[in-house]
Amino acid sequence: MTHRTDARMADGRALHYFDESGPGRVPPPDPRELPPVEHASVMRLDVLTGEWVAIAAHRMSRTHLPPADECPLCPAGRGSAPSEIPAEDYDVVVFDNRFPSFAPTVLDVASEVDGDPLWPQRPATGRCEVVCFTSDHDAAFSSLPVGRVRTVIDAWADRTAALSALPGVEQVFPFENRGTEIGVTLQHPHGQIYAYPFVTPRTTQLLDRAADHRRRTGRDLFADVLDAERRAASRVVIDAARWTAYVPAAARWPVEAHLVPHRAVPDFTGLTGEERDELAVVYRDLLGRMESFHGPGGEDPPYVAGWHQAPVRTGRDLTRLHLQLFSLRRAPGRLKYLAGSESAMGAWVNDAAPERIAARLREVGP
Amino acid sequence: MTHRTDARMADGRALHYFDESGPGRVPPPDPRELPPVEHASVMRLDVLTGEWVAIAAHRMSRTHLPPADECPLCPAGRGSAPSEIPAEDYDVVVFDNRFPSFAPTVLDVASEVDGDPLWPQRPATGRCEVVCFTSDHDAAFSSLPVGRVRTVIDAWADRTAALSALPGVEQVFPFENRGTEIGVTLQHPHGQIYAYPFVTPRTTQLLDRAADHRRRTGRDLFADVLDAERRAASRVVIDAARWTAYVPAAARWPVEAHLVPHRAVPDFTGLTGEERDELAVVYRDLLGRMESFHGPGGEDPPYVAGWHQAPVRTGRDLTRLHLQLFSLRRAPGRLKYLAGSESAMGAWVNDAAPERIAARLREVGP
Repeated sequence: MTHRTDARMADGRALHYFDESGPGRVPPPDPRELPPVEHASVMRLDVLTGEWVAIAAHRMSRTHLPPADECPLCPAGRGSAPSEIPAEDYDVVVFDNRFPSFAPTVLDVASEVDGDPLWPQRPATGRCEVVCFTSDHDAAFSSLPVGRVRTVIDAWADRTAALSALPGVEQVFPFENRGTEIGVTLQHPHGQIYAYPFVTPRTTQLLDRAADHRRRTGRDLFADVLDAERRAASRVVIDAARWTAYVPAAARWPVEAHLVPHRAVPDFTGLTGEERDELAVVYRDLLGRMESFHGPGGEDPPYVAGWHQAPVRTGRDLTRLHLQLFSLRRAPGRLKYLAGSESAMGAWVNDAAPERIAARLREVGP
Repeated sequence: MTHRTDARMADGRALHYFDESGPGRVPPPDPRELPPVEHASVMRLDVLTGEWVAIAAHRMSRTHLPPADECPLCPAGRGSAPSEIPAEDYDVVVFDNRFPSFAPTVLDVASEVDGDPLWPQRPATGRCEVVCFTSDHDAAFSSLPVGRVRTVIDAWADRTAALSALPGVEQVFPFENRGTEIGVTLQHPHGQIYAYPFVTPRTTQLLDRAADHRRRTGRDLFADVLDAERRAASRVVIDAARWTAYVPAAARWPVEAHLVPHRAVPDFTGLTGEERDELAVVYRDLLGRMESFHGPGGEDPPYVAGWHQAPVRTGRDLTRLHLQLFSLRRAPGRLKYLAGSESAMGAWVNDAAPERIAARLREVGP
């Protein structure tokens, strides 16, 4: 059972404790003097692609890899720098990012760049939250106890519900970036949640595909993919009672796996207790396999763990909650780079066969 | 005037010399013993996005940052290793990549992965060529004489015509990746040309947008964007007689500029002599500005210079040849990473305002 306690930071940002030990936490006040959060993000529609791009010029000066004793995510009193979290310890904490790409805004933004209808522009309304998975600076997600992973899942569900209820929020995206090779600026184990004011390009594509599949076959795209992967079995990594992890048939990354619930659940809020319990075990297992991929002497892979959820208002019966987990490390010391073909043309080349990736992920299990 | 001489490498790959000094080159034979080129690429359709992904498992072992005296792109006799180019010197050379993602194929590939119609599969037919811009190992593109840039443009036009004529080729993409931070595996100044067996996702998007614009307004999307940028002027970097370079209003990268011809030309083959002459000057200028972006003490930016061309068979009146040039360096020592929001959701956040990028690019001109 997870207990939430709400608090405010010195600059008015929200902070939420998710405790395993029971209710009764009295959040200490934030002793810092903080200037108000800067937020001047706008979104502009890319005329060549029809996609929104956020322009967040104030983020240039954000905190970048501070020394461990100045970590702003360690509990108060553990380091020399004032923490973002005034409590002496915590299980899981979620708070508003001090350098948000999307935030509540009172900006008066012109509705067109340079007054030209080719370039629609809007304030980048939304939320960016930070999720601290543990107070232990040196932990990895895969080393957390299963009970802690379960608490993080409850926190994701709680935040998905709360952020989905905010005016203007169209999609909620919990994710973890791990590793300096992928641009992580704080080493403390943490993830983020973006609440977007639009349906993201990837999800828009997916909904188009799922709607087309529904029209042609009358069936659910994810159900069909899941059935086909379980039938083929050659790319399945973990096949549990309520969840299956597999390497997609057209994987783009050197190591990539999807983790999909057997039941069509739009987002974290719809998961039953049993589904959350099993997910805690399976997700931790899958992350561990990814970390072991390149052998015992291998470096930890820089990874992205992205939790795709259905949009708040559209397509909730067309897609379902699923994890897209991928690593950029294609061999010890070698990264996959997104160069001309991927970055400029969107045409991906993967140097690894999905069936071989899956075989390796099965082999390195616990 | 550029003179082309065709030759064959020891393993049968094609090699083309583009000489400035006149005809009459007698290409020396390739003295190496080479095994046949491996090629086992397939393409699979990503069921969730509808995009083709190439799976090129044989590329795992490709040459990776050899020492300068083993550079395979320096002319024969300059280093200790046998060169890909048997001549003692050259101006510009183009040859088939030894580790192609797309190549002519005789593979017998099943039309569906695991026999399931959810996963169409095809051989990754096409071509991947390497373009050596100079025999000088330590040069940068921006330091080449204007006449050499002009020769490279002729080579791009020649190859675009030749590759477009091959059966199965749907789009030709000349590009340069520069810098180890973006995964460049050979330091010698070179670019690549991909001849894809499909219209790339980015171009598909662009054609959809341009067709929609045509339907709604009766006008050409690129003409309208170019006019609007020149009228607004705030993002224009170079405004020449036949070409304009500007930072797009919804730029995604910390430094990004597009270079667009005033005339609607589908690809390099359609450029007049005057357009090529001016392009040589303007492109070299633009690259130099990008390299100076972070100041005299700044590191050279890792960049991608991608030449978008109309597909071979469709949409040739909807889009036009244009350069998309972008750098991943957002500040000295700081790169832009594609993490969760960009890589998993396709939702971009740019930390730099396009108008500020343009002002800086104007300021650092020659």
